[in-house]
Amino acid sequence: MAALRAAGRQSLVDTVVEQLRTQVTAGEWPVGERIPTEHALAEQLGVGRNTVREAVRVLVHAGMLRSRQGEGTFVVSSADPAEIMRGLRRAGVRDVLELRIALEAEAARLAALRHEPADLERMSRALAAQAAFEDAEGQPDSGSLELYADHDVEFHRAVVEAAHNAAITATYAWFSSSVREALITALGDRDMPRIVHGDHHALMNAIASGDPEAAERAARELLDRPRQAVEALLAENG
Amino acid sequence: MAALRAAGRQSLVDTVVEQLRTQVTAGEWPVGERIPTEHALAEQLGVGRNTVREAVRVLVHAGMLRSRQGEGTFVVSSADPAEIMRGLRRAGVRDVLELRIALEAEAARLAALRHEPADLERMSRALAAQAAFEDAEGQPDSGSLELYADHDVEFHRAVVEAAHNAAITATYAWFSSSVREALITALGDRDMPRIVHGDHHALMNAIASGDPEAAERAARELLDRPRQAVEALLAENG
Repeated sequence: MAALRAAGRQSLVDTVVEQLRTQVTAGEWPVGERIPTEHALAEQLGVGRNTVREAVRVLVHAGMLRSRQGEGTFVVSSADPAEIMRGLRRAGVRDVLELRIALEAEAARLAALRHEPADLERMSRALAAQAAFEDAEGQPDSGSLELYADHDVEFHRAVVEAAHNAAITATYAWFSSSVREALITALGDRDMPRIVHGDHHALMNAIASGDPEAAERAARELLDRPRQAVEALLAENG
Repeated sequence: MAALRAAGRQSLVDTVVEQLRTQVTAGEWPVGERIPTEHALAEQLGVGRNTVREAVRVLVHAGMLRSRQGEGTFVVSSADPAEIMRGLRRAGVRDVLELRIALEAEAARLAALRHEPADLERMSRALAAQAAFEDAEGQPDSGSLELYADHDVEFHRAVVEAAHNAAITATYAWFSSSVREALITALGDRDMPRIVHGDHHALMNAIASGDPEAAERAARELLDRPRQAVEALLAENG
């Protein structure tokens, strides 16, 4: 019975979360504005103050609201990051690859202009570590796909972070766990093209040489083969 | 007294949220894995089951956990979208402009290949609506900066969405409220370059012509002037 009550209450909180979220995303409560008090909201929505408090907490943690001691609760963002994350999870492999190309090509261009010695060392370390999980033909060892993928993701993150751009770094970090999962799947897929090891070194060297156009081109070439393979598979099966 | 108790409980929930979040982001609970039961977590952390339930709810809404009726609660993402959103809010104007260039240049290229008639109509409508808020010299009317900015953001979203890529659309939607705010600030700033109206039409025409290289170039040119102005201001003041 206690469990049943708790479950009923849970869905009530969820309902209030949705109601408050809609007020924010629809612009009824603009960014910067103080939202009504707990007391007022409880009356307005016909629920208890505890329910309102729990729902507000959810949206504070989601990054949409912020509570300031003694001042009330304010809207800090009209976008719901979790909602957009769900959109990203629903996007297909091709879409994620194209987003990677957008970010990595621009990051490589900026990295050529702004990299520091430590950035190149990090790229180089990731490639050396990755080489330990390759077979005699330079292909990922089938027993170590996850470790191989970890070092690959680390290399790509090192490239992106060498751009020294907080917005690009944050956006890339946001979906790099999807990148890792997609990579492990692709590495185990016979229809995907083989790894060309030299591509990674070509990108690192282009960044090191300080040539933004060459770095952008190398980043595009690195991702263009898997992109074309996915495109071909979609055309076959679609 | 009841309020005091509620406040104490609130920070306890926040503490448990942080503990669970750390388990996920540190990879202790990998993506796809079921987390311990409410009962086990309450014992382990020395708190009540209600506190655990509230904390889990916060992370479900944040998009990190998912509860399946009768099966338990599973990890669905190791990245905390709210945390990354905070990173993006801390990024400077230059960083956000460079992220826009990355996404809009690639989106314009894809839009040239994939646009539908409705996409071009949407761009065209946004530009016509924007023109109503310009003065005789084609500059935004100082009394209507917000409305002018709304139509500008709508034009850029139409370009991005014409790429028909769910991942790029979701990512762009995520920070387009920052884009709008930055734009209103820039429009009111005498140090920022004047609007060149033809640039928007050039981009729309390049997309309509189906030439991906021309569309990418036009998207870059459109954002390159404000980017250079910001770079110059940073150099002056930095």
